[in-house]
Amino acid sequence: MTYCVGLRLENGLVMLSDTRTNAGVDNIATFGKMHRIEKPGERMIALMTAGNLAVTQAIVTRLTEGFETARGEIESLYTVESMSRAAQITGEAIRDVHRLDGEALRDQNVAFDVSILLGGQIKGRAVRLFEVYPVGNYIEATEDTPYLQIGEHKYGKPILDRGVRYETDLFEGIKLVLISMDSTLRSNLSVGLPIDLLVYRRDDLTLAVQRRIDEDDTYFQTISRQWSEALRRAFQDIPLPNWAE
Amino acid sequence: MTYCVGLRLENGLVMLSDTRTNAGVDNIATFGKMHRIEKPGERMIALMTAGNLAVTQAIVTRLTEGFETARGEIESLYTVESMSRAAQITGEAIRDVHRLDGEALRDQNVAFDVSILLGGQIKGRAVRLFEVYPVGNYIEATEDTPYLQIGEHKYGKPILDRGVRYETDLFEGIKLVLISMDSTLRSNLSVGLPIDLLVYRRDDLTLAVQRRIDEDDTYFQTISRQWSEALRRAFQDIPLPNWAE
Repeated sequence: MTYCVGLRLENGLVMLSDTRTNAGVDNIATFGKMHRIEKPGERMIALMTAGNLAVTQAIVTRLTEGFETARGEIESLYTVESMSRAAQITGEAIRDVHRLDGEALRDQNVAFDVSILLGGQIKGRAVRLFEVYPVGNYIEATEDTPYLQIGEHKYGKPILDRGVRYETDLFEGIKLVLISMDSTLRSNLSVGLPIDLLVYRRDDLTLAVQRRIDEDDTYFQTISRQWSEALRRAFQDIPLPNWAE
Repeated sequence: MTYCVGLRLENGLVMLSDTRTNAGVDNIATFGKMHRIEKPGERMIALMTAGNLAVTQAIVTRLTEGFETARGEIESLYTVESMSRAAQITGEAIRDVHRLDGEALRDQNVAFDVSILLGGQIKGRAVRLFEVYPVGNYIEATEDTPYLQIGEHKYGKPILDRGVRYETDLFEGIKLVLISMDSTLRSNLSVGLPIDLLVYRRDDLTLAVQRRIDEDDTYFQTISRQWSEALRRAFQDIPLPNWAE
């Protein structure tokens, strides 16, 4: 399983993914699910993937090495002229892999499950964040709903629903996604450390923060411990109902 | 959709269910999902159901009015001699309805989805809490894992994972399940107020609390507001990472 979350805030992007891959509970491995496509000063694009590892790797290969798109040109995330074109060719890459492997997967009852969060900025254009679906179409984060999640998203959603606003500061955004991930890690064993964090400040065209966080990371430990303690205190501070003795 | 949660604590049971039933998003109704089978001084059993309403009502009818079980006797939750027998005949009632309606449902691609939480005590015996699955078998809450959930369970699970212990006081348990429900209500529109709460104290053989909570309930409003504020404060109190800027 996987948990990835992306925030598209007024001042930029915060993206966080776990790294656990499993084929059953007894075959667990660490694979990065976050991929960066950077030309400092010109573009910064990041992809996070959920789903069948063979499928997602085939898609990422197309998007980074280039493939022939419906335009009849070889395109990649290094060459696209806009983020909306980036989302389009991500959908095309998904459909291309589906054409190649979809039938064989179906024959063996393996789901073609893939979801992608795609965020970034290309010089002179807006910062955008998309979720690309298995059929290749996509949605975009907006000011009303500035976050998108893929994979095991439910455990970590309540804190985002309460905390994330478009105006939220980028570094407050780091806290929110780490708390969201901490809740997910506690409730679902198939989402696991280390986690990959990326922060992009609007118009920088290079990354502000890129960090792999493992169990020894003191900041993540602090968040995890403080959050637990705060919840415990908050819980104790709530009075008993007056209709209960 | 549905969310029901049951705690089997050292001193008794806390059970909470929502009441929303929907067939699509434009056909929403309120149906109690909590059913009590009581003979004060002799037994207190409560059922909470999730799944197709026609299926769950057919099952509850069998369990309350009696049906012919594999023993060849007419049994109901008013007559069973133990909670484990109660769980067995609940499974039998599910299988009986499946025999009757399963094929017609399958023909029309309607899932036979039903899950039941069954808790209670019969005089001279232990308090027990079971989850009965669609195939009719079941699991029991234990001292290690004293809570069970059915329906839309993920949003409300983190607080239970952090807060519920076997030794937790019954009335602290009320706070926990109400916070768990509040998180679920916020994140999933298809779970809705009012909610039904039941508290049973071990060996009482009658209910300690039975309460329908709607949007005007001041205690639930207090929990919802205090919890939100506490989360916001807890979040603000967490320092920014020292590796940020």
